[in-house]
Amino acid sequence: MPQVSSFDLLLFGGSGDLAMRKLLPALYYRHRGGDLPAHGRIICLARQKLGRDVFVSMVRDSFARFVAAEDLSDTEFDGFAARLDYVAVDAGSEEDFRQLAAKLRDSPAEVITPNSRVVLEKPLGRDLASAQKINEDVGSVFDEPQIFRIDHYLGKEPVQNLMALRFANALLEPLWNRMWVRDVQITIAEQVGVEARAGFYDRTGALRDMVQNHLLQLLCIVAMEPPSSIDPDAVRDEKLKVLRALHVMSPTEVMTHTVRGQYRAGAINGQPVRGYLDEPDIPAESMTETFVAIKAELNNWRWSGVPFYLRTGKRMQERVAEIVVNFRHVPHAIFPSGPGGMVSNQLIIQLQPEEELKLYLMAKVPGDAMTIKPVYLNLDFSEQFKQRPMDAYERLLLDVIRGKLTLFMRRDELDAAWRWIEPILHGWTAGGDWGPAASSALVGRDAAAWHEET
Amino acid sequence: MPQVSSFDLLLFGGSGDLAMRKLLPALYYRHRGGDLPAHGRIICLARQKLGRDVFVSMVRDSFARFVAAEDLSDTEFDGFAARLDYVAVDAGSEEDFRQLAAKLRDSPAEVITPNSRVVLEKPLGRDLASAQKINEDVGSVFDEPQIFRIDHYLGKEPVQNLMALRFANALLEPLWNRMWVRDVQITIAEQVGVEARAGFYDRTGALRDMVQNHLLQLLCIVAMEPPSSIDPDAVRDEKLKVLRALHVMSPTEVMTHTVRGQYRAGAINGQPVRGYLDEPDIPAESMTETFVAIKAELNNWRWSGVPFYLRTGKRMQERVAEIVVNFRHVPHAIFPSGPGGMVSNQLIIQLQPEEELKLYLMAKVPGDAMTIKPVYLNLDFSEQFKQRPMDAYERLLLDVIRGKLTLFMRRDELDAAWRWIEPILHGWTAGGDWGPAASSALVGRDAAAWHEET
Repeated sequence: MPQVSSFDLLLFGGSGDLAMRKLLPALYYRHRGGDLPAHGRIICLARQKLGRDVFVSMVRDSFARFVAAEDLSDTEFDGFAARLDYVAVDAGSEEDFRQLAAKLRDSPAEVITPNSRVVLEKPLGRDLASAQKINEDVGSVFDEPQIFRIDHYLGKEPVQNLMALRFANALLEPLWNRMWVRDVQITIAEQVGVEARAGFYDRTGALRDMVQNHLLQLLCIVAMEPPSSIDPDAVRDEKLKVLRALHVMSPTEVMTHTVRGQYRAGAINGQPVRGYLDEPDIPAESMTETFVAIKAELNNWRWSGVPFYLRTGKRMQERVAEIVVNFRHVPHAIFPSGPGGMVSNQLIIQLQPEEELKLYLMAKVPGDAMTIKPVYLNLDFSEQFKQRPMDAYERLLLDVIRGKLTLFMRRDELDAAWRWIEPILHGWTAGGDWGPAASSALVGRDAAAWHEET
Repeated sequence: MPQVSSFDLLLFGGSGDLAMRKLLPALYYRHRGGDLPAHGRIICLARQKLGRDVFVSMVRDSFARFVAAEDLSDTEFDGFAARLDYVAVDAGSEEDFRQLAAKLRDSPAEVITPNSRVVLEKPLGRDLASAQKINEDVGSVFDEPQIFRIDHYLGKEPVQNLMALRFANALLEPLWNRMWVRDVQITIAEQVGVEARAGFYDRTGALRDMVQNHLLQLLCIVAMEPPSSIDPDAVRDEKLKVLRALHVMSPTEVMTHTVRGQYRAGAINGQPVRGYLDEPDIPAESMTETFVAIKAELNNWRWSGVPFYLRTGKRMQERVAEIVVNFRHVPHAIFPSGPGGMVSNQLIIQLQPEEELKLYLMAKVPGDAMTIKPVYLNLDFSEQFKQRPMDAYERLLLDVIRGKLTLFMRRDELDAAWRWIEPILHGWTAGGDWGPAASSALVGRDAAAWHEET
């Protein structure tokens, strides 16, 4: 493990949902694992006026829910809490920032300021121009290698496994192209509605909120060429090539290759839920999409003609995030197949609700003459390694601490993603199909079908 | 399941080792499974003069060892024993055969004689001429579709699984050629010595006893092109093409591409064992090989330049039968590898001591940044099917009963195998390397190494 120099960590939005659920538990695990420097502080910042003690007991309460009981004792929590501080900061108040600066100056850690890093969470802009503005503002203070644009989907274990499977084995690469892959489906479906984010969400929509970042980043990991190393720029150059190879849609193609929708009133797990337009703080005439399905295409040798279907939405029947790679049928079937028929090979990289990597194959039924049936191979090797998989934020924050940029988005990736997204946003101002039924039609036109757990 | 017409089954060598250990237990399981016709008899024939009752109690005793206790009750055994009969037959006595014929005429089963089948076990000849003589003699009584030349290795579950994996999935075929396969190793190693077969074995040797049949048949299953169906002749045509593509060795190549040896005195599992020349009934000056290793090559597009290493021997350190497919290294490694280093992908089809199909891969260590380590995938799906795998003889006898010739050798396969074996036998009369050390050198010349369990 590389030696890490001492640092203070500032957590903006430090009393918020992400901090409580994910970031502070992740930091707690890395504290326990000995990856945080001895005297480094974690200074949480938010608008709310709170005393340190109140804040620490808030964290203790949230850990009871978000840290496994067997990993949490009072002694261990107290050791972690000794790092915690809280400062109320109003983003508009210079005085607040002056006080924060003073606090940082008398750090018990030997902080080396030229080495400071900034981690940015989405949203990073709402179109190309606003994203560029953010990147320029941040770039005026930090150099690009100091900027960690986080996408937690890239920190998930099965995504990492996919990279290892692809680039450390002969197994997948010969199959990983237009000759053998029929289509790729990337889905992030949420059961929740807009919740407390109504105002923000209505200005944003599913395309900006999910496709521009998470779905395109996953697409890059699936589609990229083998990089020459796992150095940050080697990997990000390959991802950038994928983003730049995305076929930019004409206004007509936006009509035929995208589908959007808004959730209506219905039921989730037997509980009635409101429609989007009836949510508090959503204007009754809102046209914001809460569902989007897109047929993306890549203009390159490896993937020409292979559809990459992307879909995401709120208030879907199931919470699921997955990448499904559908291989072509074998060119000619020779075995009698049992009930279930002959199924093409399928690689499923599931990120939610479980982290799983499974390969679906046809195998011979034991004993029986030569009947074949679908089976799956579990490609999650954590049992063989006898090691707890890390949470995505835990791994990514550790990468920030160690200065590893490989899994973080570079500025030009962000630009390229927006350049592909913008024509869709423009096309939609002129209309476009609506809803999940149209989304099935989108896939059905290619004689394919969305992957659904049966 | 196809309806099977009634039949009597004659078992030559009916009191022998193979009958007691394998064939009668296999028939017992098929009796229990309802696959034998209601009134069909199993008439065991051997030279020994035995009464039926004595024979049946011999069978009962051997079942105590070779049938799982939970599958055997007195009632079930009695049901099976009702089929059993025993007739002492001296192969040279016409009178004995006349009596046998009379016994067959008053069968309780409605036997349809034009449909009779003959199952032949090895040895089928000791060179091309003698094999052809046997085939002509058998052919004068039975048509080719009535002749079932058995090779029990082809009935083993992992061999069947390999066929299903290859031809019912997109996964392996793109890898299954000279581009991605570095070498194939087929090993059948026995711990036993010549045992009670000394006289026969010394006239035969490992090349005739094992390579000509078992090892070449396994090579055919690995190397064959996808057949257009699993009809017997479609599969056997493809196997024949493999046998005919085997590069026939010149006398010089026999010196460089083959190694033979004879076991000496040593120890197996801590017990001292005799050398071959000290075994009873082995002539002191015997030159018969008990070990052979061969580098075989195929003259075709798919496999040109890929060595198929074959090796078999008696009194080896371990009892193991396996096919190992070594894939090439990934062309370029980008991940740091943990202890164990970077290992190429390997498919291991183990037939003995366990029936297993495993794929060795590199996978990411969970949590850790991007370290990869070797892991394996178990491709034995019997747990998912919740079904007991059949013993090889059980499956093959069932195929005989159902008239399925796919897994049995056709006459021209036998000829082709002998045509490749004979030049090696001839080359050896002029000398050749000896022993397992030379066998390592044989593989080492290609910068490869035999697969050994570590």
